[in-house]
Amino acid sequence: MTSSPTAEDVLAARRRLAGRAVRTPLLNVPEIDALAGRRVLVKAEVLQRTGSFKYRGAFNRLSLLSDDERRRGVVAYSSGNHAQAVAAAARELGIPAVIIMPRDAPTLKIENTRRHGAEVILYDRWRESREAIGEEIARERGLALVKPFDDPAVIAGQGTIGIELAEQAVQQGERIGAVLVPCSGGGLAAGIALALEQALPETQVYAVEPEGFDDTARSLAAGERLRNAAEMRSACDALLAPSPGEITFPILQRRAAGGLVVPDAAAFAAMATAFERLKLALEPGGAVALAAAIGLGAGTGGGAWKIRGLRRGGGTIDQYDGLGGGGAIAVICSGGNIDHATFCRLTGEAAAGH
Amino acid sequence: MTSSPTAEDVLAARRRLAGRAVRTPLLNVPEIDALAGRRVLVKAEVLQRTGSFKYRGAFNRLSLLSDDERRRGVVAYSSGNHAQAVAAAARELGIPAVIIMPRDAPTLKIENTRRHGAEVILYDRWRESREAIGEEIARERGLALVKPFDDPAVIAGQGTIGIELAEQAVQQGERIGAVLVPCSGGGLAAGIALALEQALPETQVYAVEPEGFDDTARSLAAGERLRNAAEMRSACDALLAPSPGEITFPILQRRAAGGLVVPDAAAFAAMATAFERLKLALEPGGAVALAAAIGLGAGTGGGAWKIRGLRRGGGTIDQYDGLGGGGAIAVICSGGNIDHATFCRLTGEAAAGH
Repeated sequence: MTSSPTAEDVLAARRRLAGRAVRTPLLNVPEIDALAGRRVLVKAEVLQRTGSFKYRGAFNRLSLLSDDERRRGVVAYSSGNHAQAVAAAARELGIPAVIIMPRDAPTLKIENTRRHGAEVILYDRWRESREAIGEEIARERGLALVKPFDDPAVIAGQGTIGIELAEQAVQQGERIGAVLVPCSGGGLAAGIALALEQALPETQVYAVEPEGFDDTARSLAAGERLRNAAEMRSACDALLAPSPGEITFPILQRRAAGGLVVPDAAAFAAMATAFERLKLALEPGGAVALAAAIGLGAGTGGGAWKIRGLRRGGGTIDQYDGLGGGGAIAVICSGGNIDHATFCRLTGEAAAGH
Repeated sequence: MTSSPTAEDVLAARRRLAGRAVRTPLLNVPEIDALAGRRVLVKAEVLQRTGSFKYRGAFNRLSLLSDDERRRGVVAYSSGNHAQAVAAAARELGIPAVIIMPRDAPTLKIENTRRHGAEVILYDRWRESREAIGEEIARERGLALVKPFDDPAVIAGQGTIGIELAEQAVQQGERIGAVLVPCSGGGLAAGIALALEQALPETQVYAVEPEGFDDTARSLAAGERLRNAAEMRSACDALLAPSPGEITFPILQRRAAGGLVVPDAAAFAAMATAFERLKLALEPGGAVALAAAIGLGAGTGGGAWKIRGLRRGGGTIDQYDGLGGGGAIAVICSGGNIDHATFCRLTGEAAAGH
């Protein structure tokens, strides 16, 4: 595998994941079509093992380790979904795992990671560098570092979602005009972009980020990797990477149409909508793409929040002009690791805010 | 089609539903296995069109109407899930629909039914007879009455879940020892029992009911159709039928192993578990089978509620002795039509009760 993954790497990942990863359904409900004013197809990736898409990349990466590397073990840093995925995949493959997680990660994510048998080390998200801690532990203990997004095997694993999307579109007789993908470091968006380059070359790919963490949208507009301001905060705990990855960004620059930016409140409202209309539990970061799709209907009886965006190469996206060229909008509902009390508090606030 | 449906009727229903109904996934998560102390397979039928299994039976029934019947239209009575399903299937087939719903049905269910274009007539669940109202309207307006469970085509439609279960068990390498099925009038349980007679003859079928509405469990034990006491109440609004059906009961008597009875609080706790572990939104009635499965682990670090039951032909079921003979336990998560505020209230009470 080269430093930038290829479409062949995605196909190889798919073979490794066969019988391991859930082939998550592509759902459509008329109520969400009505909100968005467009046909919306929901890739229910919350039904994936460990509750998020991260299992695909983690399992693919770990299954490529040598026997010697497997024996010594792996280390990963993660805000929670990658943590659980690496821990679960490591246990399945009999590999010891150390996971470095921010102290303020959701309790459910920390508990789940420990339950999968990993050793969890907590750090201060806002004062310490997880990359530095991870590299130090990897060196000291001789462990393989499993990065959350900037790794060709991780990107290829996430890309298997793109292959499934293309297959399901054919099987279900759908034409997908655009795919909206939740984006943090860009592993999921880059993987899907890569898979669609061959499978659905006409389909646009948009990265969707929470407000304050729109580094990918701004980077795509500027043509270079930009960082988020350090003081920003968001409830989308899965989407707080400071900048696009070294490996992910060139793929997005080649293939993504732009980035959309979603306020937290729109993500909370989308969580309530997903619960009632799709019967799915989403965490805030897992709901941003759905929120962006619902935002398409803003002002026309649909979503209450107008979503803004930036085009690759510059220029703003207003009311999503021409997005998807009239085809269906596919959204990745990427994660659902949230306890029900937190879900109720966040969606309650969203409802009260109307 | 005869007055009692056959396995061939289920296969015919499956052909009619191909490309219409969602082939809902059969999920497994280790956290629920740990709670139950057994392997648990979850048929996520909440992902079905209109948010419950009812779409299968309704669509199958309506697609058997003559052109003349279609032109005149249909009438149905339902606490909510059958209502939405008949309304949606009728709209798809261009058939006018009148739906008779209890005034105290969940607002979401009434709104959804209206949104599907049906005319909704409300009645008093505790003082009026929906059967009488339905038959009167059918006669006056010349409409075909689509009963919620006591209809061979409806039972055959619900039975398509049994065929999918058998196929998915093979594909996923699972041996299903028992299927736990939420039960009101028995359409779903009878349909699945019928399908499994040929497809998985060794698999036990259990009807699962809420406390106070255990008419099927008591009827199976007694060998005759018994009624629930009129003053009973339950939060499982989808499971309040007064007695087993005339057509459904003989099928269950031939094929069901017994009935399990679940307190409302156990259903609420299962809703919270389904949210966090399966990422699925369940309504109380849709969660009783999962609650019963989790109850298998009561006293061993799993479920907090011990579930009682009655065997067909008599005798109590204690700690589910021998249930499923060591095979996996399949549970049907049958419906998820609940608004998020009600979900939060019910699961919050369950959590506070610990």
